[in-house]
Amino acid sequence: MAEQNDGFRIETDALGSMQVPNDRLWGCQTQRSLQNFEINQPRDRMPPTVIKAFGILKGAAAVVNVRHEALDAKLGDAIQQAAAEVASLKLIDHFPLVIWQTGSGTQTNMNTNEVIANRANQLLGSPLGTKSPVHPNDHVNKSGSSNDGTATAMHIAAVLDIEDLLLPGLRRLTEVMWQRSKDFEDIIKVGRTHLQDAVPLSLGQEFSGFATQLNYGEKRILQSLEGLSELAMGGTATGSGLNTYAGFAEDFCAEVSKMTGKRFTTAANKMEAISANDALVFASGALNTLACSLFKIAQDIRFEGSGPRSGLGELILPENEPGSSFMPGKVNPTQCESMTMICAKVIGNHTAITLGGLSGQFQLNAFKPLIISDFLHSVRLLSDGMDSFRKNLLIGLQADRERIKQLLDQSLMLVTCLQPHIGYDMASKVAHHAHKEKLSLKEAAVELKALSADDFDRYVRPELMIHPAAKPGGQ
Amino acid sequence: MAEQNDGFRIETDALGSMQVPNDRLWGCQTQRSLQNFEINQPRDRMPPTVIKAFGILKGAAAVVNVRHEALDAKLGDAIQQAAAEVASLKLIDHFPLVIWQTGSGTQTNMNTNEVIANRANQLLGSPLGTKSPVHPNDHVNKSGSSNDGTATAMHIAAVLDIEDLLLPGLRRLTEVMWQRSKDFEDIIKVGRTHLQDAVPLSLGQEFSGFATQLNYGEKRILQSLEGLSELAMGGTATGSGLNTYAGFAEDFCAEVSKMTGKRFTTAANKMEAISANDALVFASGALNTLACSLFKIAQDIRFEGSGPRSGLGELILPENEPGSSFMPGKVNPTQCESMTMICAKVIGNHTAITLGGLSGQFQLNAFKPLIISDFLHSVRLLSDGMDSFRKNLLIGLQADRERIKQLLDQSLMLVTCLQPHIGYDMASKVAHHAHKEKLSLKEAAVELKALSADDFDRYVRPELMIHPAAKPGGQ
Amino acid sequence: MAEQNDGFRIETDALGSMQVPNDRLWGCQTQRSLQNFEINQPRDRMPPTVIKAFGILKGAAAVVNVRHEALDAKLGDAIQQAAAEVASLKLIDHFPLVIWQTGSGTQTNMNTNEVIANRANQLLGSPLGTKSPVHPNDHVNKSGSSNDGTATAMHIAAVLDIEDLLLPGLRRLTEVMWQRSKDFEDIIKVGRTHLQDAVPLSLGQEFSGFATQLNYGEKRILQSLEGLSELAMGGTATGSGLNTYAGFAEDFCAEVSKMTGKRFTTAANKMEAISANDALVFASGALNTLACSLFKIAQDIRFEGSGPRSGLGELILPENEPGSSFMPGKVNPTQCESMTMICAKVIGNHTAITLGGLSGQFQLNAFKPLIISDFLHSVRLLSDGMDSFRKNLLIGLQADRERIKQLLDQSLMLVTCLQPHIGYDMASKVAHHAHKEKLSLKEAAVELKALSADDFDRYVRPELMIHPAAKPGGQ
Amino acid sequence: MAEQNDGFRIETDALGSMQVPNDRLWGCQTQRSLQNFEINQPRDRMPPTVIKAFGILKGAAAVVNVRHEALDAKLGDAIQQAAAEVASLKLIDHFPLVIWQTGSGTQTNMNTNEVIANRANQLLGSPLGTKSPVHPNDHVNKSGSSNDGTATAMHIAAVLDIEDLLLPGLRRLTEVMWQRSKDFEDIIKVGRTHLQDAVPLSLGQEFSGFATQLNYGEKRILQSLEGLSELAMGGTATGSGLNTYAGFAEDFCAEVSKMTGKRFTTAANKMEAISANDALVFASGALNTLACSLFKIAQDIRFEGSGPRSGLGELILPENEPGSSFMPGKVNPTQCESMTMICAKVIGNHTAITLGGLSGQFQLNAFKPLIISDFLHSVRLLSDGMDSFRKNLLIGLQADRERIKQLLDQSLMLVTCLQPHIGYDMASKVAHHAHKEKLSLKEAAVELKALSADDFDRYVRPELMIHPAAKPGGQ
Repeated sequence: MAEQNDGFRIETDALGSMQVPNDRLWGCQTQRSLQNFEINQPRDRMPPTVIKAFGILKGAAAVVNVRHEALDAKLGDAIQQAAAEVASLKLIDHFPLVIWQTGSGTQTNMNTNEVIANRANQLLGSPLGTKSPVHPNDHVNKSGSSNDGTATAMHIAAVLDIEDLLLPGLRRLTEVMWQRSKDFEDIIKVGRTHLQDAVPLSLGQEFSGFATQLNYGEKRILQSLEGLSELAMGGTATGSGLNTYAGFAEDFCAEVSKMTGKRFTTAANKMEAISANDALVFASGALNTLACSLFKIAQDIRFEGSGPRSGLGELILPENEPGSSFMPGKVNPTQCESMTMICAKVIGNHTAITLGGLSGQFQLNAFKPLIISDFLHSVRLLSDGMDSFRKNLLIGLQADRERIKQLLDQSLMLVTCLQPHIGYDMASKVAHHAHKEKLSLKEAAVELKALSADDFDRYVRPELMIHPAAKPGGQ
Repeated sequence: MAEQNDGFRIETDALGSMQVPNDRLWGCQTQRSLQNFEINQPRDRMPPTVIKAFGILKGAAAVVNVRHEALDAKLGDAIQQAAAEVASLKLIDHFPLVIWQTGSGTQTNMNTNEVIANRANQLLGSPLGTKSPVHPNDHVNKSGSSNDGTATAMHIAAVLDIEDLLLPGLRRLTEVMWQRSKDFEDIIKVGRTHLQDAVPLSLGQEFSGFATQLNYGEKRILQSLEGLSELAMGGTATGSGLNTYAGFAEDFCAEVSKMTGKRFTTAANKMEAISANDALVFASGALNTLACSLFKIAQDIRFEGSGPRSGLGELILPENEPGSSFMPGKVNPTQCESMTMICAKVIGNHTAITLGGLSGQFQLNAFKPLIISDFLHSVRLLSDGMDSFRKNLLIGLQADRERIKQLLDQSLMLVTCLQPHIGYDMASKVAHHAHKEKLSLKEAAVELKALSADDFDRYVRPELMIHPAAKPGGQ
Repeated sequence: MAEQNDGFRIETDALGSMQVPNDRLWGCQTQRSLQNFEINQPRDRMPPTVIKAFGILKGAAAVVNVRHEALDAKLGDAIQQAAAEVASLKLIDHFPLVIWQTGSGTQTNMNTNEVIANRANQLLGSPLGTKSPVHPNDHVNKSGSSNDGTATAMHIAAVLDIEDLLLPGLRRLTEVMWQRSKDFEDIIKVGRTHLQDAVPLSLGQEFSGFATQLNYGEKRILQSLEGLSELAMGGTATGSGLNTYAGFAEDFCAEVSKMTGKRFTTAANKMEAISANDALVFASGALNTLACSLFKIAQDIRFEGSGPRSGLGELILPENEPGSSFMPGKVNPTQCESMTMICAKVIGNHTAITLGGLSGQFQLNAFKPLIISDFLHSVRLLSDGMDSFRKNLLIGLQADRERIKQLLDQSLMLVTCLQPHIGYDMASKVAHHAHKEKLSLKEAAVELKALSADDFDRYVRPELMIHPAAKPGGQ
Repeated sequence: MAEQNDGFRIETDALGSMQVPNDRLWGCQTQRSLQNFEINQPRDRMPPTVIKAFGILKGAAAVVNVRHEALDAKLGDAIQQAAAEVASLKLIDHFPLVIWQTGSGTQTNMNTNEVIANRANQLLGSPLGTKSPVHPNDHVNKSGSSNDGTATAMHIAAVLDIEDLLLPGLRRLTEVMWQRSKDFEDIIKVGRTHLQDAVPLSLGQEFSGFATQLNYGEKRILQSLEGLSELAMGGTATGSGLNTYAGFAEDFCAEVSKMTGKRFTTAANKMEAISANDALVFASGALNTLACSLFKIAQDIRFEGSGPRSGLGELILPENEPGSSFMPGKVNPTQCESMTMICAKVIGNHTAITLGGLSGQFQLNAFKPLIISDFLHSVRLLSDGMDSFRKNLLIGLQADRERIKQLLDQSLMLVTCLQPHIGYDMASKVAHHAHKEKLSLKEAAVELKALSADDFDRYVRPELMIHPAAKPGGQ
């Protein structure tokens, strides 16, 4: 197993031997997977956060195994050191496998075992490929299986990216959205329902709706985090816990919690935790809902910013780039377009995750690499997308107060506040008359003798129309 | 507006008049919708629970309006009585509209207003179609708009069907699943991962995994109920609350809570509550996850019941019907097939709901009838499907203990418990040797001198393999 | 098996006997299914076109069986007569089963066999429930199985509804769309890309884009019809053709073609035809694409019709109904809303059909009732929806020529036609200058000395901008 | 605009100037996009085939523009040379933009214009950043816009990858599948419907079903290619063709056809071709259907290969790698798992593409980068996945003839061939009796006096049961 002159060394496993490049820490099973799964390399490699999570997992398992004397302390120390390097992502180039592999993620688990074993042996002065003194299966994989291991790494990775990427990005966006709501609170504008003119509200109220969608989005993600904090480790291959020991699962979670600063607990039922990935399907549902919210927000903003002369023109979007290769001077709502594409992608990922999620069979869900890859992709896209949207659009967004006022003043739907005074049927006639004859509402109301001009002025005041009256019949 | 001799009467609205059958309580706008939307009548009519919810809503609004002196008490009483009849579904034949109508549900809201106004006038001795003394818009719709009204009716309907249909059915199924887990707890069987033989677990453990999936399913639905309990009422058309008054929204929710026995609160932000239906998208995500769980459970059970002679044959499903028109004596897992089709449908509905959910524009989401119809369909299918599955399959399900034992005894994966004793590589050789030479594991182990026959018997005991050892290295 | 006094008779099958109402023609297996699948009855019953297709199928099989002397002519005649009654849908009340049943549709196939056998025996003077002289399995099901039978009925039903409902409706809509394109051909308007003002086109051109989408939609549906015209009949249970005979499959298809006036051929490979439903998945993809087209068309029309005073206001939609219960005088794009909801539903159905389509196992796809029910629902919704859209919106749609001209005249993007004359960079400066200073393009161009006022007038002529120039550099 | 000492140079556009690394050929707008869209860089960069297609497009446009004297020949030559380098992908490192950008792909179009202009100027001896003599908009973008350009590049890229990657891979798989069908044609096995034992067929017949699914898959993809071969070029920004000239569009397509060796034609209606991407939605539907087929095939093969001792065990899959980190000696159906995950991903992509496809607005569909990226990802995954499946699984797949025969011989469903002789009801009794008493079919038949042992032997011959009889009643 010494290095060969040609730049390769021999690594072995149960099926025989393979050549591995000398400068790579992986072993025989990783090498086999590389050759058996030449599928969209290198783009579709296992996401780095999963590798990080596997590093954390192997380190935590070694700590607990040493503590319980299931593992020699010297080997355990070397494994912990190597695992920490994996968790730091500094060895990421030694994880070349794509997600299109075995559905349990066994090959990435073995990739981790092999890299850590080789690296630990290196630290202990033993050549690569010897599997000695540290053996990838017997020591690095100690008390674990690919099945509980991958399920565990998925949850750790999901929690890390949600708590460290998604929630901060979402909170930053929400905060700015509330700020903009406040900035716009005195701007009264025409409402639009069915895309048609409707009763007024303030632009600040409109943005408060957006901000509330984001608040609820956060709440839903937090709800879905509960299930993700449960870890399968200790279930080994089928959930039964064979080849582990009392206390391992609980101690493991405590160790991972300590290492990550997040709260993890052992899954109440390990069969469920390995054979199903429902917690991720549900969490993806929370992302799917956030995507719906962001789609709606981006859609509204780009429509209200449409123009400059033939659109609604109520909002002025930052000019970040020339908009057209063909039409000089054009500025487009590109951040909105990017955001809505991201949302469509997140929704597509949700379909794939759902399909993976329902496809568990017997003691294993074997769509794990797909599920976690798509999940983390959605998390990353939403995180980056919200930051980009906030920085490049929302902060610099301006209201065109003049245009907004002009549209409001000519709106026929101000008639609605007259309903308590003149009844629905007469109010309806006034609006129709104004529309048909291209009159102002007041002119129409007076012409139809619905009420006097004075009364009209008393009742029809947009600033009184954007909240409930103090008491019935009043404004 | 008196009844005509030809069986029709004239009803009017802002656009003119229409003929309506004398024996129907609806009015002009309902009649228009019937003619303008001849789309898959009558199959796709608005779900009855939505009509019930509208009845509750109109009754509650009348109570509050009378209390605040926004509505004459006599009219209010008549409205309440008529609304109660709507809520009881005894007037369901007067609600002929399909969901393919205006996206705010305005036409169903007006259908409700018209039926209640006509019925209330009838109770007050006034002819149908007079709109007097009770006017559909001015009185029945008092303090409300179609936009907040439909959003409110959707949430009420969703909560009613979830709490009264879905959760009870889910709990009944969960309870039986835990019971079956207990029934099967002493039956040790071969585990299967990747569909391949794996280390053993008990059949009871397997079913505990199913039951846990259902427990979590309930928890997720309960989480999603929080958002559904918030009501948009009081926002009127755009969320601003124009033409309502201080206290209306809160009192309305208290009244609905009283009438239904469920907890409802007023939505914190009415713009969000009308322009988005995110709470239903998220709740649909919880149903989507439950569908994944049930798909998996039904799939496993039908595979484990496959046979009778060329399948896995571990479970014996109740013979509910002859299975084949062609192959005499065949019995099929029909309840599993029905269940998996239901799950596919729920997942398809979730796509439609998601698409509807992201399509809100400005102050209104105008996909409301689609969203609530698909949501309630999913709820109903899951409820009925779980009951059918429980009654017609799960309760009568039997284990074929003899077959299960036979498969377990010949399993090669029992070798796994030897790993701590002989190492992964040697254990692997034993399994391969047994497989290739068609030997028992013990024969193979002894032939390869992996360990003695006595040691084999001491270590390889399935009953010790279905849980963690008391301490490392032991079983 | 005589009728009992209590209004029920006894019917029997391989598992025993059941009570069946005297006034119903179904038998024991139908009755069992009714009791075993109490799932969303009666709304989710098997679609009538499937029952019609089963009637056609049983009649055609009887004709061929008699011709080949596989069936006694007297029995065959009675079966044909009864089958014709089923195909006419006059016995539809005797088909009470929901689609949530066995995944092969066996129970609906047996429902058909039982109804035809009972009806045929009735015609032959024998009491209901005797299965004699006509036996549901031995005679009505002769040369067939539920598996090939349901697969066949699905294709027949799909072809019938596509050719008789969908394509005619699509062609009617397309024709009117081209007509409107012609009506609007001389109306030049501002183009919009990214929702922002862009170079002009005629309203007729815009509508020609819609019409072309519909033309392609028809072509795609026709392409998908090819696969649907292949019938599984003759494959019996697994595709092998056991218990049929040479010539049956081909003669059967000829007979069905004759009965329906549509072209059907026998499936080249019966294993594929029963174990997969790919042809329906692909055809659903064609419907999915049509849904995308219609969504886009409806969306554009409602945006261009937005207003009346604060929207784009280029189109005037027919006022079909009062738009709001709350805002008097409001008119909404309800046909567009109905259409987009229908499209969302078709897309959701496509997800369900796809999920059903991939779930075939071994010799059978057991998601057949779901697949065909959702497919026919999509066909029906699109058919009815397109007719409603055409009649209630498209035919009466008007252009607001004044508004369109006003928006065009003030558009900055007319600058684009100057690019060949003054270059992209200068053209861009002109547009920005006009925008910032609220000038007309011409004023800005002259101010910046980009070109003379005369040249401006010569080059900037919208009517020259809506097609390629005769040669480079010219308009 | 000369290079600066710090490794950067200044590039400019209509909005101002930006620093660009000296060793990069892109310009100001690319640089802006890099900074405005920091979203999942670099993983989500525009797919290389799109860049290749843009290179082809720009080269072809230059050829046609020179021919029609719309472009100076010297500039045209330099543009063609630079465009050829882009098309060869040797400049791929100069295309750093992600797909999360403007929805028209304008930024990638400008990236191409900028790289080609800079490279052409370099070839002509002019410094980078000068935009002279070759200007990115005025010359490289000549006769085109981002809108028709991106739509065109999408179709070119789709056709290239379908014809050069997908169809060859699909044909290779189909060929091997038919070969395996032939290899297995004499192996008669138990059929399975509803996962339950059914009448026999040959293993070759089963594989002929798979092969037929693939044949149809190819046909569907070929059908969808028709729409993809139409190119939008010549429509410029809105489909009107402003700033192009008669003959450009047709000549352009001829040139692209010549350059690629594929057949392209100009889109009949350019408004449709830019504002919608229906052709890609439909083609994605063909991929979606192929994914369903492959999912089913992979699923069946892994189930039939399940075991080694407690599964169906009819097929023996190649041992490509050790299956488990935990269970020594385990071999898993990893190629099937990879394939089914790929199929789930393709189906998820189809949802995203559908959502993008329906979201066109007015003259532009602004989800173009998402649509083409997901489409090409699906194409690539299916291509690579089918090759991997073929090489690593299908070619080495073996049948376990002994096991297959054993299962067949004990099957109760052989009784079906007796139906024509003893009737459905008696045949059913025989099967039930055999099942309940654990008898062979023959023993049961004789015990029930259904027929004589001799007759049983004469009729029950599996080799006669896998095809229709020569005439009714015979086998």
